[in-house]
Amino acid sequence: MNDIEKIVRDQAQAAKEASRRLAVTSSAVKDAALRAMADALEKNAGAILAANGEDMKAAEAKGTPRAMLDRLMLDEKRIRGMADGLRQTAMLPDPIGEGEMETIRPNGLEIRRVKVPIGVIGIIYEARPNVTADAAALCLKSGNAVILRGGSEALKSNRAVSGILAEAAEKEGVPKGAIQFIDSPSRDAVGVMMNLTGLLDVIIPRGGAGLIRRVVMESAVPVIETGAGICHTYVDAGADLGMALRIALNAKTSRPAVCNAMETLLVHEGVAKEFLPKMAKAMREKSVELRGDAAARAVVTDMAEASEEDWATEYDDLILSVKVVKNIGEAISHINRYNTGHSETIVTNDLNHAHRFQREVDAAAVYVNASTRFTDGFEFGFGAEIGISTQKLHARGPMGLNELTSTKYLIFGEGQIRE
Amino acid sequence: MNDIEKIVRDQAQAAKEASRRLAVTSSAVKDAALRAMADALEKNAGAILAANGEDMKAAEAKGTPRAMLDRLMLDEKRIRGMADGLRQTAMLPDPIGEGEMETIRPNGLEIRRVKVPIGVIGIIYEARPNVTADAAALCLKSGNAVILRGGSEALKSNRAVSGILAEAAEKEGVPKGAIQFIDSPSRDAVGVMMNLTGLLDVIIPRGGAGLIRRVVMESAVPVIETGAGICHTYVDAGADLGMALRIALNAKTSRPAVCNAMETLLVHEGVAKEFLPKMAKAMREKSVELRGDAAARAVVTDMAEASEEDWATEYDDLILSVKVVKNIGEAISHINRYNTGHSETIVTNDLNHAHRFQREVDAAAVYVNASTRFTDGFEFGFGAEIGISTQKLHARGPMGLNELTSTKYLIFGEGQIRE
Repeated sequence: MNDIEKIVRDQAQAAKEASRRLAVTSSAVKDAALRAMADALEKNAGAILAANGEDMKAAEAKGTPRAMLDRLMLDEKRIRGMADGLRQTAMLPDPIGEGEMETIRPNGLEIRRVKVPIGVIGIIYEARPNVTADAAALCLKSGNAVILRGGSEALKSNRAVSGILAEAAEKEGVPKGAIQFIDSPSRDAVGVMMNLTGLLDVIIPRGGAGLIRRVVMESAVPVIETGAGICHTYVDAGADLGMALRIALNAKTSRPAVCNAMETLLVHEGVAKEFLPKMAKAMREKSVELRGDAAARAVVTDMAEASEEDWATEYDDLILSVKVVKNIGEAISHINRYNTGHSETIVTNDLNHAHRFQREVDAAAVYVNASTRFTDGFEFGFGAEIGISTQKLHARGPMGLNELTSTKYLIFGEGQIRE
Repeated sequence: MNDIEKIVRDQAQAAKEASRRLAVTSSAVKDAALRAMADALEKNAGAILAANGEDMKAAEAKGTPRAMLDRLMLDEKRIRGMADGLRQTAMLPDPIGEGEMETIRPNGLEIRRVKVPIGVIGIIYEARPNVTADAAALCLKSGNAVILRGGSEALKSNRAVSGILAEAAEKEGVPKGAIQFIDSPSRDAVGVMMNLTGLLDVIIPRGGAGLIRRVVMESAVPVIETGAGICHTYVDAGADLGMALRIALNAKTSRPAVCNAMETLLVHEGVAKEFLPKMAKAMREKSVELRGDAAARAVVTDMAEASEEDWATEYDDLILSVKVVKNIGEAISHINRYNTGHSETIVTNDLNHAHRFQREVDAAAVYVNASTRFTDGFEFGFGAEIGISTQKLHARGPMGLNELTSTKYLIFGEGQIRE
């Protein structure tokens, strides 16, 4: 066992022990801790900004792209944002102990199923240091110990933030070890985490496709896959084309780099001639590059050609692929072939088409007449989210506090034995 | 890509396509298919018995142990049992489409979460051919396509059963390809299945610890871990010792080879002198071998010595390890250290101890004053089970039809876009 393996394993062991006590820690203690953690972040903003300044300087010296520098950067406002997030989490209802079912069996056994914490959650994330606070808050509130493994470029920022959070939490009675930060830039730490079966109950990777793929393929610890989003908007025949244009523009341009943004626009052939020119003009005014299939290019002749690869690409950028389809069946087939199971929408006035689209499209969130951009824990009313699951096990779609719980059967008897 | 990889991948592709249609197949069709499958098994009992006879002959020639031969063996009664299981599954409520939540957001978006099938489920199992029918029935009823991979020793039996089931299902309108059987004894097939991300949604291994460990460690497809059961019975001070003895005997001896059987008995030191001699006598009458710690052996002097390894062993046999503890805290610590998260019970008259035991013990099912043997889909009222999950993600405890579902958010709007 090398050094990093021993360090991470010891941290996981400590987290597991803490998780046992945290599972039976009251909401009052957890909420007081969350508020104290928020106060501590604001009080120690100077130290956090100093650490972040060092990370920023090193990243700039390495020639890190501007977009990534912006994600790494902290300022007073962002620290206040982290603190506000902690306080909001304190105000959410505590899911732990909530009853899910209760039954009395013919033999008199009383069986209840209640929500319990999962145990120890590993979060592997990239540039943004605010994930440190968000993830710690959601895990703490749901009674889970957390092992945070941030990106190496944010090491000093994350060290400062996690240290302040852990100290403040402990002072309020949260078991020591419940918030763990892996204080090493070594990539081996991720490999160690992925093999901590029996200590870690789940790993949630948050970051680029490469990171997520690696964890899904290699982890022996169960994984919740998040984030990949090839989302479609389908404009049906007879749709309100004004509404369709507003929804398409919003889905593509309001925040192109996020996972619920549209990547491909599908248009029924019956409305292509009317809709596509207006769409192309409006998208181009927002600097969107268009790539179409032959039928789309027959209408908007100066559109670039979409390749097979385009249909399978999450641009995360101001690029949109456009395809004309013969009918709703072709739209659904295209979506089910190329989507990542995230969010899909149909713009239609046809009740049967709306119903069919929602039944047959295989995705976490299937919309009728609304932008896919709403797939988000806050927008769904969950208060916060740890990520958006694109897999079908355990949780699908935005993951809030409820999705960070497991269950336990509690059975009361009076001496029953089984025949 | 070698032959077995191509075959299995093609089957998974066919299963995935079938799963899309099966997801929107009505309960009426699914239930008619289940009844037709039951009839077909009974009608073709002769062919099944002939195939099973060949498997049995080959297994006997290889010197297969008697216990395994018994699990492999089919007769008229067992075939009728399979058919009855199919008919019972037809009578269970269909979980698909059931609403889990519904909310209207401030912006007017209507958000519903409904149960949907998982998609394609891989079942990897060992000797018993009846798993073929049970798993096919539960997956079909819950709208999932299934890929069945049975043990090589039951290849001919499983081929016969799965072929009859698939044919009968298809005749009733179940999409072709929804019930797939991997007709190869090659161990490579398991390796291929574990890498079918994007085609298989989950793998459920059912069998020995070696199989389950391999799948958990190596699979890129999400896994639901089942079956390991180091279950404890704790006899508290002040317990009704008559009840404690009945529960302990039932938990150990009613069916020692199953996962919800007791492996370790913990006894409070205050009742050890009175309880242990009676317990030892009764267990020995049932041919149970006892292995105790020093304190237990001070009371029952002819008990063998338990080693550290005993506490961590699932005997699945008529062996019981026995430990005397100072108090309930030591009992809970011992359980949380050595258990597999399956089923645990306390025999007590103390309300606070009952409450504390249920809160602090980390397991799928935590009992007060009842035998751990009740952890079972039928006993819990789920009608049938595909296995007992000992992990915390997705499902914990007996997995019935509900646990074979995922969810989907259905959102209705009137043109909403996100700011």
